Amino acid sequence: MEYQISDKLKNMKPSAIREIFKSLTDPSIIAFAAGNPAAESFPVEAIAELSNEILTNTPVTALQYGITEGYPPLREAMISRLSEKFGIGRPDDMTIVVSGGQQGLELTCKTLCNEGDTVLAEDPSFIGALNCFRSNGAVVKGVPMDEDGIDTELLEKALKEDPKVKMLYLIPTFQNPTGRTMSLKTRCKVYELALRYGVVILEDNPYGELRFEGKELPTLKSMDTEGIVVYCSSFSKVLSSGMRIGFLTGNEKLMQKIVVAKQGEDVHTTMLPQMICANYIEKYDLDKHIEGIRALYRRKCGIMLDALDKYMPDCVKYTRPEGGLFLWCTLPSEIDLDTFVKRALERKVAVVPGTAFNCDLSTYSDSFRMTYATPTEEQITEGIKILGELVTEFINK
Amino acid sequence: MEYQISDKLKNMKPSAIREIFKSLTDPSIIAFAAGNPAAESFPVEAIAELSNEILTNTPVTALQYGITEGYPPLREAMISRLSEKFGIGRPDDMTIVVSGGQQGLELTCKTLCNEGDTVLAEDPSFIGALNCFRSNGAVVKGVPMDEDGIDTELLEKALKEDPKVKMLYLIPTFQNPTGRTMSLKTRCKVYELALRYGVVILEDNPYGELRFEGKELPTLKSMDTEGIVVYCSSFSKVLSSGMRIGFLTGNEKLMQKIVVAKQGEDVHTTMLPQMICANYIEKYDLDKHIEGIRALYRRKCGIMLDALDKYMPDCVKYTRPEGGLFLWCTLPSEIDLDTFVKRALERKVAVVPGTAFNCDLSTYSDSFRMTYATPTEEQITEGIKILGELVTEFINK
Repeated sequence: MEYQISDKLKNMKPSAIREIFKSLTDPSIIAFAAGNPAAESFPVEAIAELSNEILTNTPVTALQYGITEGYPPLREAMISRLSEKFGIGRPDDMTIVVSGGQQGLELTCKTLCNEGDTVLAEDPSFIGALNCFRSNGAVVKGVPMDEDGIDTELLEKALKEDPKVKMLYLIPTFQNPTGRTMSLKTRCKVYELALRYGVVILEDNPYGELRFEGKELPTLKSMDTEGIVVYCSSFSKVLSSGMRIGFLTGNEKLMQKIVVAKQGEDVHTTMLPQMICANYIEKYDLDKHIEGIRALYRRKCGIMLDALDKYMPDCVKYTRPEGGLFLWCTLPSEIDLDTFVKRALERKVAVVPGTAFNCDLSTYSDSFRMTYATPTEEQITEGIKILGELVTEFINK
Repeated sequence: MEYQISDKLKNMKPSAIREIFKSLTDPSIIAFAAGNPAAESFPVEAIAELSNEILTNTPVTALQYGITEGYPPLREAMISRLSEKFGIGRPDDMTIVVSGGQQGLELTCKTLCNEGDTVLAEDPSFIGALNCFRSNGAVVKGVPMDEDGIDTELLEKALKEDPKVKMLYLIPTFQNPTGRTMSLKTRCKVYELALRYGVVILEDNPYGELRFEGKELPTLKSMDTEGIVVYCSSFSKVLSSGMRIGFLTGNEKLMQKIVVAKQGEDVHTTMLPQMICANYIEKYDLDKHIEGIRALYRRKCGIMLDALDKYMPDCVKYTRPEGGLFLWCTLPSEIDLDTFVKRALERKVAVVPGTAFNCDLSTYSDSFRMTYATPTEEQITEGIKILGELVTEFINK
């Protein structure tokens, strides 16, 4: 049979990162390409103990259908935490549990965008989000970034030119893939522009708790007096990515529609992992646990930056992230990115070419993303040394 | 802010059943309205033991990101089981794990239907499926049923009249809400029609293993020589509904696109519950466990039918299911369904009005759905007695 695939999915390919991720099972490869949190960041023993307790004491709650909005104790715990840590939560806001942050992004787009509507995003941006907007028929348009985050002049131009913009997708803190953090001034300007043009901001903050340098900045949602920001985050980078537990906060009227969309997608999020997260927050010290993850990434990022400073020729530029998982390297224009990435892989170092994160097709053909989260400290130094040698070979050719 | 909700979600309301489900927390109510499996059907001790083993021996696999297609040992186990039990799986078929059967239905629709395309379904049908098709912008049209399942003459008429039909959604076995099973003759005719009109059949079979009377019938997928059937099922009714583990089988070309759509929705299905299902199949006897569930439902359905035979006036008609969870009761036309359902709830018996399952808005205003799965045996007899008295009061008025 010749399948007639829907217009929105017809031209979509599997995410380049997910495909690279599949090939990362080769242990001899130094995996700077992964997007995974460090396995050491999972509180394994606590989760095992909590799971055992739940399945012993309240097995039916863990194994029976739950409600779409999420396991009530988890929602309550998140509401408190979001308020305390991020100044998030006005009286007309509502927080629901979603099946990983990804679902929160997808549901928000589905609820706001018709096919053909525009989503603006930082360019480059998280490929998983861009693809989920596309798979809902939305058109993704990129707005270039500078050191302070999204370029607000170009953002205003894009908002002015395109009346079909429904949503502005942003990762203001420790952005994926660049590792950049949006400045306070840019945050204020972005909020003001979104309000003026009547556009919802979808703030994605999966790395927000992973600051290891510099000063905390307010979330866009914490500035949201007018109810235009939907805030998405998850436990993937602080407790476990495989559990697929995220949360989404926004104005109640909008969230009620998102709940209807979620009913249609998976009825509700898996119960046992929801209960593990709720009980972890209740019985353990999540802040202390996260402090440990910050220390781990501070050390690993420091090792990567030291190695870059030492082994990388000056013509290569890289960001100096203050948190999160990623660092963004830009090659001199004479080096062909695709060839470089292929040669690096031949020498057992995997990085993600910047083209994988492009909103449009032509940009960022000179940069690549690296993570310091999953490789060992030795691998970080060794891998950067190999990449540095490779750059030298390219420029001396 | 005035939110501009997408056309596809603008007019959607929360599912009536999910709302009733929320109100079912009152333990004094006899819950014939629920769609839950019996709590006794969960193998609690085995799941606790498996979870403990997994989190002790392979915690990182359980807590780290996985691949979109699903945990490989679970996929392998399902491929074997589908082949052995249901004759499913041709060389060009592919089976993936989804986050509950609901996600399988939703992804199939998203991948095949543009906004405005038509999905045909048995009328009445499972409201959760109808709503997920609508939330993707598809137009749901109902085809009436007879005792043998969907009316094939009316199905052919619908296929002939509407060139926008992309998908035919069917629950051939122990249909929700009617409890009816499609006859072999109808199965053959339906397959032939779908093939002739170039329409994909989405076969939903969540109850297929729960036959407690009569003879097994082949799944539509087992007849699928041409690759036009996508088959969806889950562990919700045989191991645990709260884990949200389902699976989807179809031709590989179509499934590859569905995998892309799934990446966008939740990256992958939660790992620990996937591993629990895989290890349960490996280490325990799932067939024996299901035999126990069948015996439980055989007994409970028998008690409900006995009580109906004894207490219900002859003017009330009801199906005699051979498996699954549901039974469908039709009142004489002089009784107003809404008033009846309200009065029943005042007497602490909850049923779901048939109108909740309508594809179109006008039909099935004389029927209601009941489950025998969750109430106790005493509640079943007591609840049917109350409903019988209520019918008598209505017809004597």
